[in-house]
Amino acid sequence: MEEEEVPASAGGKFPLSIGVPLPDSADVRTERVLKKVLATVASRGKQHNPVTGSGGMLLGRVAQIAAPDGEVSRAHRGLRVGDRVATLVSLSLTPLRLDAITSVRTESAQLDVRGQAVLFESGSLVKLPDDLPERLALAVLDVAGAAPQVARLVPHESALSAPASNATVLVLGGGGKSGILCVAEARRRLGKKGRIIAVESYARYAEDVRALGLCDAVLTLDARDPVSVRRAVLEANEGREADVTFSCVNVPDTEMAAIMATRDRGVAYFFAMSTSFTKAALGAEGVSKDIDLMIGNGYAERHAEHTLAMMQEFPAVRALFEARYT
Amino acid sequence: MEEEEVPASAGGKFPLSIGVPLPDSADVRTERVLKKVLATVASRGKQHNPVTGSGGMLLGRVAQIAAPDGEVSRAHRGLRVGDRVATLVSLSLTPLRLDAITSVRTESAQLDVRGQAVLFESGSLVKLPDDLPERLALAVLDVAGAAPQVARLVPHESALSAPASNATVLVLGGGGKSGILCVAEARRRLGKKGRIIAVESYARYAEDVRALGLCDAVLTLDARDPVSVRRAVLEANEGREADVTFSCVNVPDTEMAAIMATRDRGVAYFFAMSTSFTKAALGAEGVSKDIDLMIGNGYAERHAEHTLAMMQEFPAVRALFEARYT
Repeated sequence: MEEEEVPASAGGKFPLSIGVPLPDSADVRTERVLKKVLATVASRGKQHNPVTGSGGMLLGRVAQIAAPDGEVSRAHRGLRVGDRVATLVSLSLTPLRLDAITSVRTESAQLDVRGQAVLFESGSLVKLPDDLPERLALAVLDVAGAAPQVARLVPHESALSAPASNATVLVLGGGGKSGILCVAEARRRLGKKGRIIAVESYARYAEDVRALGLCDAVLTLDARDPVSVRRAVLEANEGREADVTFSCVNVPDTEMAAIMATRDRGVAYFFAMSTSFTKAALGAEGVSKDIDLMIGNGYAERHAEHTLAMMQEFPAVRALFEARYT
Repeated sequence: MEEEEVPASAGGKFPLSIGVPLPDSADVRTERVLKKVLATVASRGKQHNPVTGSGGMLLGRVAQIAAPDGEVSRAHRGLRVGDRVATLVSLSLTPLRLDAITSVRTESAQLDVRGQAVLFESGSLVKLPDDLPERLALAVLDVAGAAPQVARLVPHESALSAPASNATVLVLGGGGKSGILCVAEARRRLGKKGRIIAVESYARYAEDVRALGLCDAVLTLDARDPVSVRRAVLEANEGREADVTFSCVNVPDTEMAAIMATRDRGVAYFFAMSTSFTKAALGAEGVSKDIDLMIGNGYAERHAEHTLAMMQEFPAVRALFEARYT
């Protein structure tokens, strides 16, 4: 078990104890939110968003490490007092105490606070590299599940003959946060082999991912138009469908684009929370597409370490994330 | 292309052309439904349920087979004029003409009709074995996707050492229509090895599946209670979680039972249309379960043939289906 000081940033809506100082900058609307948060934490000792039920995550430094017998130590399983860590378990499950709130960042829905949290060994946390800015860490770890799942589904270059067959990766929403991580991880697996196609409707994001130079094609298309997406993918892929498709488009009605652009016995992996189970299931059946449809699991073993390591290998991806999300 | 006479039964709401005779038995409410169907077919030449958008399926006999050049033949790719077939493509995509409706089966939502349908070679249809009653065929083919997906995920006995590890199959809703097919297919794969555990809340259905003798344990439990399900599965499986779980429970809030009863890197496969994408995705993440979550695809290549062949191998399953669904 570790106990942790929280002088830093917290994603989502961070808990505050009643009576703690509020920042001078807080306006009436912000104050109302903070007071709602205070009430939640006062009654629960944890934080959860009353609308979504989710809790967010936090960044901070390890203040103390306690063994099950109550013995206090300086280090445990590679963690030391003073280490910067991020929690990967919802704040709705994390015991918290707040001593002060030092600033509110409305745009990124983050709070800077002073306080402590109790983390359990069974819960998920990750040590942050020293050279990773906190805000970047928050942005990346928010979608830490993407890269490891891509790594499991995209074949490694060593398993591919050149020119590679069965190695076309399609990323719908490839210019967004999780989409870029999917593209980067796919390229990491494929090396110079295979083919990566990104579909991105937002022109600036399409330009961003094109500039990374990791894709063979970036198609500026709306993923809600399955016929256009399928046609463009076939055109960009010598008439073949994708072998694996990752859907990272967080708007409804993009299931059919993923299904229709993927080959029989290929995989369509849905990361977007806007995915409809029935639209995917009945859609694939309706067009007789024999593909594996997967619900994106945000958790994978050592997913945070995996994603942070990947970021170090792609400085351009990191620079883009820093420019866009910090 | 085949053209097909339809003297037989049709699942879902079957289309009728305006002016066709209605059965004498039809009451006022039934007549209203039939007239709605008539209006749909009259305007579209196909049938779809205006509420669900789905179309059902039909059974009938092949009346004529036409080649793309218009040439009429007696046989094509194993199909002959006179063969009994079932369509596996939605009636909402199948051109239809109705000449008479001979009876209405309200309980099973089936109509007996005379008429013709045009089926395309690209669409999915299956030849029915001569000894399979039509009503049984309808019941089985309605969930034809289940068995082939199970066959893909459950290891074959030849790949298992005895006592088998990594071969515990859990079926939630194991006493229902698709659940029984999952249980039977799992046993077909595992032979005398592995372990099959069914969870079924409805006592009569639990007794039915127990009587089949295919399961190692049948637990009469509500799949909406993940803690009880997990505890009972561990008890029935020497403290281990399931390797593959199939969820066939058509009520909401059963995602967590499947997730919590499945081992890390195992698979939870969701057939039930009541499955919530977000509950599965966020649920697995929330409890840090590194498992593959799959959306049940009702289509798999040759799924109907696969399922019909499986039924022939399990006379007790067939007898149960005949007793329950015909």
